[in-house]
Amino acid sequence: MNQLGIVKRKIERADPAAVEQLGRLGSATVHEAMGRVGLLKPYMRPIYPGASAAGTAVTVLLHPGDNWMMHVVAEQIRPGDIVVASITAECSDGYFGDLLATSFMARGARALVIDAGVRDVRILKEMGFPVWSKAISAKGCIKSTLGSVNVPVICAGAFVNPGDAIIADDDGVVVVPAADAARVAAVAQKREDLEGEKRAKLASGVLGLDMYNMRGPLEQAGLKYID
Amino acid sequence: MNQLGIVKRKIERADPAAVEQLGRLGSATVHEAMGRVGLLKPYMRPIYPGASAAGTAVTVLLHPGDNWMMHVVAEQIRPGDIVVASITAECSDGYFGDLLATSFMARGARALVIDAGVRDVRILKEMGFPVWSKAISAKGCIKSTLGSVNVPVICAGAFVNPGDAIIADDDGVVVVPAADAARVAAVAQKREDLEGEKRAKLASGVLGLDMYNMRGPLEQAGLKYID
Amino acid sequence: MNQLGIVKRKIERADPAAVEQLGRLGSATVHEAMGRVGLLKPYMRPIYPGASAAGTAVTVLLHPGDNWMMHVVAEQIRPGDIVVASITAECSDGYFGDLLATSFMARGARALVIDAGVRDVRILKEMGFPVWSKAISAKGCIKSTLGSVNVPVICAGAFVNPGDAIIADDDGVVVVPAADAARVAAVAQKREDLEGEKRAKLASGVLGLDMYNMRGPLEQAGLKYID
Amino acid sequence: MNQLGIVKRKIERADPAAVEQLGRLGSATVHEAMGRVGLLKPYMRPIYPGASAAGTAVTVLLHPGDNWMMHVVAEQIRPGDIVVASITAECSDGYFGDLLATSFMARGARALVIDAGVRDVRILKEMGFPVWSKAISAKGCIKSTLGSVNVPVICAGAFVNPGDAIIADDDGVVVVPAADAARVAAVAQKREDLEGEKRAKLASGVLGLDMYNMRGPLEQAGLKYID
Amino acid sequence: MNQLGIVKRKIERADPAAVEQLGRLGSATVHEAMGRVGLLKPYMRPIYPGASAAGTAVTVLLHPGDNWMMHVVAEQIRPGDIVVASITAECSDGYFGDLLATSFMARGARALVIDAGVRDVRILKEMGFPVWSKAISAKGCIKSTLGSVNVPVICAGAFVNPGDAIIADDDGVVVVPAADAARVAAVAQKREDLEGEKRAKLASGVLGLDMYNMRGPLEQAGLKYID
Amino acid sequence: MNQLGIVKRKIERADPAAVEQLGRLGSATVHEAMGRVGLLKPYMRPIYPGASAAGTAVTVLLHPGDNWMMHVVAEQIRPGDIVVASITAECSDGYFGDLLATSFMARGARALVIDAGVRDVRILKEMGFPVWSKAISAKGCIKSTLGSVNVPVICAGAFVNPGDAIIADDDGVVVVPAADAARVAAVAQKREDLEGEKRAKLASGVLGLDMYNMRGPLEQAGLKYID
Repeated sequence: MNQLGIVKRKIERADPAAVEQLGRLGSATVHEAMGRVGLLKPYMRPIYPGASAAGTAVTVLLHPGDNWMMHVVAEQIRPGDIVVASITAECSDGYFGDLLATSFMARGARALVIDAGVRDVRILKEMGFPVWSKAISAKGCIKSTLGSVNVPVICAGAFVNPGDAIIADDDGVVVVPAADAARVAAVAQKREDLEGEKRAKLASGVLGLDMYNMRGPLEQAGLKYID
Repeated sequence: MNQLGIVKRKIERADPAAVEQLGRLGSATVHEAMGRVGLLKPYMRPIYPGASAAGTAVTVLLHPGDNWMMHVVAEQIRPGDIVVASITAECSDGYFGDLLATSFMARGARALVIDAGVRDVRILKEMGFPVWSKAISAKGCIKSTLGSVNVPVICAGAFVNPGDAIIADDDGVVVVPAADAARVAAVAQKREDLEGEKRAKLASGVLGLDMYNMRGPLEQAGLKYID
Repeated sequence: MNQLGIVKRKIERADPAAVEQLGRLGSATVHEAMGRVGLLKPYMRPIYPGASAAGTAVTVLLHPGDNWMMHVVAEQIRPGDIVVASITAECSDGYFGDLLATSFMARGARALVIDAGVRDVRILKEMGFPVWSKAISAKGCIKSTLGSVNVPVICAGAFVNPGDAIIADDDGVVVVPAADAARVAAVAQKREDLEGEKRAKLASGVLGLDMYNMRGPLEQAGLKYID
Repeated sequence: MNQLGIVKRKIERADPAAVEQLGRLGSATVHEAMGRVGLLKPYMRPIYPGASAAGTAVTVLLHPGDNWMMHVVAEQIRPGDIVVASITAECSDGYFGDLLATSFMARGARALVIDAGVRDVRILKEMGFPVWSKAISAKGCIKSTLGSVNVPVICAGAFVNPGDAIIADDDGVVVVPAADAARVAAVAQKREDLEGEKRAKLASGVLGLDMYNMRGPLEQAGLKYID
Repeated sequence: MNQLGIVKRKIERADPAAVEQLGRLGSATVHEAMGRVGLLKPYMRPIYPGASAAGTAVTVLLHPGDNWMMHVVAEQIRPGDIVVASITAECSDGYFGDLLATSFMARGARALVIDAGVRDVRILKEMGFPVWSKAISAKGCIKSTLGSVNVPVICAGAFVNPGDAIIADDDGVVVVPAADAARVAAVAQKREDLEGEKRAKLASGVLGLDMYNMRGPLEQAGLKYID
Repeated sequence: MNQLGIVKRKIERADPAAVEQLGRLGSATVHEAMGRVGLLKPYMRPIYPGASAAGTAVTVLLHPGDNWMMHVVAEQIRPGDIVVASITAECSDGYFGDLLATSFMARGARALVIDAGVRDVRILKEMGFPVWSKAISAKGCIKSTLGSVNVPVICAGAFVNPGDAIIADDDGVVVVPAADAARVAAVAQKREDLEGEKRAKLASGVLGLDMYNMRGPLEQAGLKYID
């Protein structure tokens, strides 16, 4: 699946309006709407609390300890993109810091999602450039081996095609296939629209047991109340 | 020990005054007063810094990827309770989000302690509903299999009986058996009362070596000073 | 390498001016200047975001679950020191809390770096005493077995001699041999001096591909662009 | 729950015949018969393949890096017992080697289950003394701090009362409450008795889909076959 | 990417002759020939040493703690297949034991590769049915929620399409896209053909430094020999 | 401490007779005799059970995913040596397989100890070349960046100087400084000489409680026997 030494310049990006909508709905709601698939492993965490981003994936495949392709991917970024970086083996090195962030921001990138480490995290926070990563590490990288840009990658256990919608916030990172973005956004919006009413009921003391009519099924499943 | 499909409605809760006192003293002091037992494993972390809670345990036992019993436990919450959730196998899924938190708060719950994942963590922080968990994950749960409520559980390596006092803060989560709460609070208070004087001495430059009379025992144990 | 039961009182500390300079440059830049060695493993994290410290190492070797030597090392602290604590086996117990921090601060310590756990983290943050640790745990320690002070130690995978410069911030912890501190500071400063110009170029939209003249080498390595 | 400094001499052991029967049935079948509770975490592995043991628990609670109580528990062993060792904090040290194994065997112990490390594993295998542990480590222990013997313990996430039946083999370790041993053995035996017939059918090519009548429920759940 | 509730019956399997050849060459050689992609994460280990298998993938996507789809996938197995099982979230439960193995063998399956746990491992070894898994666990599964069969899956970090060639042995598990199997086998065979001569030279004392002409490049890179 | 790009040809090797003696005594006894220091972290495991080796360290420092220096270190091996390999960052790639093992054996190496992965483990076992490693992985390495040979390294948390004695068996890997080898061997031998008598006593049913005169100290520490 991974072709090495290739940069694909033309990719089909998910519809921007759908991406915006997915971003407003958040990773948890979008993940539900997807049928509970597309979540990157929960070890992927934002480098600062409150980080939130939605965009279209440009992907990059790198080797352990080698960030050469980060400079190659920078050129492929368009405004609204999120760079999704996958490594060919487990690595916690710091692939990305404030200089690359400056370049990515200048190109219009909204975030980085990387299954490895980053550094300069205090400055990244000050710059307002959000990153979801597996680690934070001061260790830098060499520039020696080719990887690829805009090939399909597996990042933190999830399959990401270039152009897919990426929704990232405090709850994690979800990928939505580009062709599904509008449909998923509509499904997620419906879920969200119902939540306000539910929240009001629950806040007033109504139990989920009653609101969702669970008492019957629970009794049928054999639930026993004792004192 | 774990009976499945049972909800116990009547439990003996620890004395509220003792619980309040234990909460003021904090998990580290309480853990010392307990004789260094009762601590949940340190992978249990608050979802936001500064979170702090003390209350009486209502327990819930759930299956991996299934949060049905969260709705059942909600009904058993009384003001001042902390829900302690244990899973029958390792799981990092998000069992709990803002809707359940709304319901738990409406019932008077003070916190959730869960050996699994939660989601909607930004909103939970805004709501001021503290959670101590093993993971944060956008992945939701099905509602399919019975567990139990208010049975004894093992949560993150600690044994919790319904009604036990739960003390949770930035240092972790400690459980105090309901019947011991007042005694432990008294022991912990004594420790705390002595700390102010110690702190003042240490701040003035007195060494623990002298304040605790350690020089003799250290010499006896064979400690050698060299230049 | 580890002699037990020994306290070395006289150590050669790195030059204070070099230590200050290294601290201003930060762990990532210093690590690069060192030739990418000297980084403690990235599981070492500050107990609160934004923590930053630079100082000279006084080292302490302790046993699992036993913090007796923390009181012994306190006496060896001089203003500007950072205590570097290594454990003879894996341990996540809380070796250090607000009382020891009070004592360390009174002696002039700037930070603690410990390959184990600490507690009272909320108070430590209020006191402004930064700690880099592997864990946070309310579990306290016994005082029973001798370790050593100011012997060479391995802390989180890095070799630390007493007197070495320690640079710790949000990106991690780096150790610089005392004798190398001035030289490394000079190398790191040069790197830093060049970064401003690079940052400006990147911010203006110049690509790293062009700024670093990477297009030729990438082509030679076989990189292919496709549409 | 954990009282420190106590040795309970009289405990109620599970019925020996039931224990033997549970051992013949194996941990997986017993765990099913228990309703899928009572399994120690799967990181507990035999120190050599093919190890298998069933017996009654004598429990011991120890401190990290301290195996003093191993000698105390030895005296409480009766023929047919399995020692279940729990540590008050995470520890991988080697608490047990060939000398202690010689003593345990002389007392009639059948195995050791320990949530920590052991050593001399080649000799233990030659002696035929099986151990289930979290780690193997050459690191020995001090003898300094009191724990307890024959108090209830939590071992690798499972609650063990002294006298409970312990079933351990290549699939893991299961604990059966002493009072339940006979009942669980009967339930497990019934499961086992049905397995022979099932195995023959499956071996002849009959599918589980048909043998368990799953096609209807799968269709109802919405399963679609496509080409 | 993951459609739920779907069973695809017709898949394109890799060429059997190429699969056999890949199996003879082994996972390490095949992985090199692939350009160092396609390896499942190294936590995937055989349940007994010496296990080795090569076949074509039939894939199954399951939910945590739920092995219902294992019975569905059994029907889709053809002689020479290897079942590749992926779970929608992290899980170590035992999804597979001797009964399912009997059924799989009756259908002609050569192995199971599963990113979760299995049980009855002693019997599986006696049956000669090899499994590569993340865990061994006596814990069984429920049968409650639909997954899918023969959809593309991500298993232990690698992308697997139904029909792909799977090469598994003591060194791990490699996946080769069905369409690439013959080409990769040819490349791998060439590597292997050269190894015999190399091995003989190295065994005679010739150094890799000389055999691979590395002395020049090492000197150019700046390698210094000192005494 | 780590100089890059350097090969030290002349090193002081530990006394061969002492190394042989240490090897006969085994890692656990040697570790005790060392005062419980010098053990590599217990995640270092032999690639096949029963592996055992003792020799003198030649060290090599490598980069993640790059095994170029393995060929450089091969030339520095003398009969009786064990290669100790350290990586500058966490890596599980397979740095070593049957070709390098052939070369190492031809040079007289007795084993490899590596804080990373190896491959071809079935063949290595057949060749009788023992390896202690962190991982097994089919993933190969590039040959691109200089490391060093025979510099001091930290391997799996332990400090190793070239020439140090390495004792490795089923219980783990211990390093003994070259200058200490004879002294430690003598201390360890004394321990071992006493073990035969102890073993006989324990086998006859004498308790450690009595043989080590522990009853008094335990009572003094407050141990209580209850029924």
